[in-house]
Amino acid sequence: MELDEILETSVFLKYWNVVLTIALIGILSKWLWNRKGHKQIEREDEDNEILADSSSKAEEIDYAPALEEKEHIAYKGVAETLSGGAKQFYKMMNDRRSVRSYRREPIPPIDVIENCIRAAGTSPSGAHTEPWTFCVITDMEIKQSIRDIIESEEELNYAQRMHKQWTTDLRPLKTNHVKPYLTDAPYLILVFKQTYGVTKQGKRKQHYYNEISVSIAVGILLCALQAAGLSSLVTTPLNCGPALRALLNRPVNEKLLVLLPVGYPAENCKVPDLERKQLDDIIVRY
Amino acid sequence: MELDEILETSVFLKYWNVVLTIALIGILSKWLWNRKGHKQIEREDEDNEILADSSSKAEEIDYAPALEEKEHIAYKGVAETLSGGAKQFYKMMNDRRSVRSYRREPIPPIDVIENCIRAAGTSPSGAHTEPWTFCVITDMEIKQSIRDIIESEEELNYAQRMHKQWTTDLRPLKTNHVKPYLTDAPYLILVFKQTYGVTKQGKRKQHYYNEISVSIAVGILLCALQAAGLSSLVTTPLNCGPALRALLNRPVNEKLLVLLPVGYPAENCKVPDLERKQLDDIIVRY
Repeated sequence: MELDEILETSVFLKYWNVVLTIALIGILSKWLWNRKGHKQIEREDEDNEILADSSSKAEEIDYAPALEEKEHIAYKGVAETLSGGAKQFYKMMNDRRSVRSYRREPIPPIDVIENCIRAAGTSPSGAHTEPWTFCVITDMEIKQSIRDIIESEEELNYAQRMHKQWTTDLRPLKTNHVKPYLTDAPYLILVFKQTYGVTKQGKRKQHYYNEISVSIAVGILLCALQAAGLSSLVTTPLNCGPALRALLNRPVNEKLLVLLPVGYPAENCKVPDLERKQLDDIIVRY
Repeated sequence: MELDEILETSVFLKYWNVVLTIALIGILSKWLWNRKGHKQIEREDEDNEILADSSSKAEEIDYAPALEEKEHIAYKGVAETLSGGAKQFYKMMNDRRSVRSYRREPIPPIDVIENCIRAAGTSPSGAHTEPWTFCVITDMEIKQSIRDIIESEEELNYAQRMHKQWTTDLRPLKTNHVKPYLTDAPYLILVFKQTYGVTKQGKRKQHYYNEISVSIAVGILLCALQAAGLSSLVTTPLNCGPALRALLNRPVNEKLLVLLPVGYPAENCKVPDLERKQLDDIIVRY
């Protein structure tokens, strides 16, 4: 039997092509539609997995809030301020610079670092989930391992992975893949975002807007370090997250957000001769 | 001519079904492959567009850094600190609460708000791109329009878009779609992240890690407001970004990150009876 003979043996087979065309148009339409919808959600919200699930399964689950439901309490407003207010605070923060070379000694007292992390932990977070873990490294062997991981990845980043415009934009900052600050700085703080949590009942707990929340906590950490007279540098080691998470034995729900060396600038410390934008370049009044 | 006659008029038309089947398999495979690859990139890095472009086009472009290349300057370390250091700073920040009801008066002086935004503008950012815009709203008509946009979207969010676990997790915070603070608070600050910029030569300028950078700036803003004795609330109005951007006439490269009402708490202000995690729940020492 030849192919055309087979195709002629039944009405269904004869019109197979028509059926296929309809299926093809259907699949293509759905794909285009999904693609458009997916992009919109990406643009709108980082946590698309916590948007409403239209499946009926959702109705069967017994929901409980992650936080206890208690009576709200009175709040009279801010009690602790700075005597010089916002002006003093701005002056303090305007003095901050990103520092890439550190003195090995003196080592700042650990309780200063702890108070800075306590301050960072006062950050607001989506539904008060507090989705942060601060890993504080003082052990030289671990610092060396971190440096090895980052320098080998950064060598690849600069040579192959980063777009030429990116490495060009970094040229005025004189950065490259060699990072002595990772072993010189007395402290390394690795800030992990917990992409989800686990309730006391062992259920998965959603961490809404965890990246924004943890980044805000990092902003508060920078202010605390500045108040304490310590320097730091916010780094985002590209492609190093999984290896560093494994090295520090952190659970799978934690993703590295940033790494900060912390300490005092080296004697010969130099920083880029940068200016900051003026107020009128960043504010719009309505 | 009947359909089967038409289909039999040429060899191509006869085997149309076979051609269609092959096309269908091809499209399906490509779709599945793309889907897998897309997910992997999302997990690794937010800025996949700035990763190296393997196409040869990249070689033809004349790259210039966004910043001027200048000699670096000496940096002696932090000069402005707090007399009470990290401990004082922690005490100040631990006093901060997210406030959802505001007094319409007194109106804090605008120069206090400006100094807070100046402080936020000292934030570090990827390759010093400073990718933030702070829109400060005092006009009551605009505040009312913002409230209208957010309340109508939030009504849909709570009723339809948010997963039931999400609305359940918000129950202890007693939030809903009604937001009087959007018209009561003397100031609204809408913080936009600039997803890219434009160079003086009119070329597109990459803003590396712009969401993390702007969120860190928001953390510094919260500290400045606290230092000035002002209360605020970090909100992420879901699905409202495009409408608010249009209302404020912001360019397409700006995306709303957060909105903060700023002022003094209402006389009868209440806040959730929350505790913060202890230091040992957020720190890990190595």
